[in-house]
Amino acid sequence: MRPSSTSAFNVKPLALTPGEPAGIGPEIALKAAMQPLPRSIIAIADPALLAARAEMMGLPVRLAPAEAAVEQHQPGVLPVLAVPFAQHDCLGKPSTENAAALLSTLDIAVAGCQDGRFGALVTGPLHKSVIADAGYAFLGHTEYLAERCQAALPVMLLANETMRVALATTHMPLRAVADAIDQDMLTATLDVVFDALTQRFGIPDPSIAVCGLNPHAGEGRHLGDEDEDIIRPAIVHQQSLGRRVSGPHPADTVFNHAGKDADCILAMFHDQGLPVIKFAGFGDIVNITLGLPIIRTSVDHGSALDIAGSGVASETSLLAAIHAAASLAAHQDAD
Amino acid sequence: MRPSSTSAFNVKPLALTPGEPAGIGPEIALKAAMQPLPRSIIAIADPALLAARAEMMGLPVRLAPAEAAVEQHQPGVLPVLAVPFAQHDCLGKPSTENAAALLSTLDIAVAGCQDGRFGALVTGPLHKSVIADAGYAFLGHTEYLAERCQAALPVMLLANETMRVALATTHMPLRAVADAIDQDMLTATLDVVFDALTQRFGIPDPSIAVCGLNPHAGEGRHLGDEDEDIIRPAIVHQQSLGRRVSGPHPADTVFNHAGKDADCILAMFHDQGLPVIKFAGFGDIVNITLGLPIIRTSVDHGSALDIAGSGVASETSLLAAIHAAASLAAHQDAD
Repeated sequence: MRPSSTSAFNVKPLALTPGEPAGIGPEIALKAAMQPLPRSIIAIADPALLAARAEMMGLPVRLAPAEAAVEQHQPGVLPVLAVPFAQHDCLGKPSTENAAALLSTLDIAVAGCQDGRFGALVTGPLHKSVIADAGYAFLGHTEYLAERCQAALPVMLLANETMRVALATTHMPLRAVADAIDQDMLTATLDVVFDALTQRFGIPDPSIAVCGLNPHAGEGRHLGDEDEDIIRPAIVHQQSLGRRVSGPHPADTVFNHAGKDADCILAMFHDQGLPVIKFAGFGDIVNITLGLPIIRTSVDHGSALDIAGSGVASETSLLAAIHAAASLAAHQDAD
Repeated sequence: MRPSSTSAFNVKPLALTPGEPAGIGPEIALKAAMQPLPRSIIAIADPALLAARAEMMGLPVRLAPAEAAVEQHQPGVLPVLAVPFAQHDCLGKPSTENAAALLSTLDIAVAGCQDGRFGALVTGPLHKSVIADAGYAFLGHTEYLAERCQAALPVMLLANETMRVALATTHMPLRAVADAIDQDMLTATLDVVFDALTQRFGIPDPSIAVCGLNPHAGEGRHLGDEDEDIIRPAIVHQQSLGRRVSGPHPADTVFNHAGKDADCILAMFHDQGLPVIKFAGFGDIVNITLGLPIIRTSVDHGSALDIAGSGVASETSLLAAIHAAASLAAHQDAD
């Protein structure tokens, strides 16, 4: 069941993978479909599972076959590219039986983005451990997509309306961070960020503010040498290419000072970069994976098993991810 | 020249050390003295140096001997306990010749707080390296004060009007952080924070939200073991004492969720805890050293050599430090 008709659209629809069916993914997808959206979306999911969740929660969404997708999103209608899930009785309890189907939804979405049927991929939340428990070597959503796209270096970027924060390292123990950062990976990361800002975001001469690794960016080697030996040379290299890359900046003040007007702040690790942007506005944050040949945005929350089906889950972050994907896809269309 | 008369005050004056004379410390002290203040202050400084800076900048502050200090601060009058500085021609250029006098101002302030002449110590910014260059084993303001007070474990706390953030580790290379945290030091740190919240801040049953060390607080050991092996047991121990200590919480969301209404958030390291509070409100942040037998607050900025004497330096942070010291001293008076 392929949305063959959609390839004729001037504006390609977005692929939406609702993610783990035991969590809030299906219901926030349904809630989002009830809203006006900037582009049509096609959910890649099990329609029976979506229908059951819609009925359970009293959400008046009409599910349509993917072939019936039209160019403008119709609030209240969700076209679905059907992927059957093995275990439907899973609310709040992720089943390893659904892992294969979950990965299929991602594979179909990636293939559709690559062959031009979809303009971008928007992903709902997965429950990482249940996929690993099912026997797949699954490190995470981003890593899986990068492998499917044969992308060497995916870079995580969080964005809200006022700032973008990219990460040089993401999900690793803190004690592994310092050794994970070398000049080559920083150069590759900055290249990915620069290319994404110019090509994906359409910013002609972007500025990037780079955080130091150590407190006060090492305070002139008093608090570690990596800022001078690794980070500064990588920045100087970017500057030699004529790029507006600055730093290393002390991370505790970069958000107020050097990075305040930058197009992107590159943090060295997870808890250095994410607390501020999440504090500044949690609900509207979008997770965008840079460095992939496709556009991928994601919600910035987990599958929230504890509240799935209760009706309290908010679709705000998913809507922000859809809007960001549509905006990025528009730049792509314009190229 | 000792402010012997002040010991008779019902409300003890605050000792103010303006800090490095090459930087903005003297001018922000003068600017602060022009404002209404909640308590009288006595600057411990070189009056000739202060007078020259006041004249240079056109600040109409009258310097008075410390003995002339009265119980209520008079805007426009700054009592000074005189400590002669060797090098007065130092604007923008810290001189090692002034290091001994700078440390004397701290020694006098500490002694005065300990013998009851002063209610608290408010410190302006130092330029750390020039003191080290002068041959003193000087690691930092806080460490020096802790040693003078024979305090085993000073704990750095930053506070603004809406949050308090304490740090388990402060100024060390990032790669040293994981090994610096063990259960004993966390227990001692949490004891200091709890005692300060109850005794210094007068909060009867304070809540403390403790961050994890690793991303997502280790995500069930997927991202490191320290959160489960070290931090959680230290929290459980606090809970066994009947204290409202929670965590380990993921640091990227603690400011919005678990720690939002806490009386204090304990971060594990500098760049995990400080970016958010500095982003939330930089100018009004006060640095308070917990775990000392005296009350000490500080500005939350450096000596800003580049703008010293230009008139652009703001006294906002110093005013916040003075107000915080006065508030803490009032709790002390009430005990």
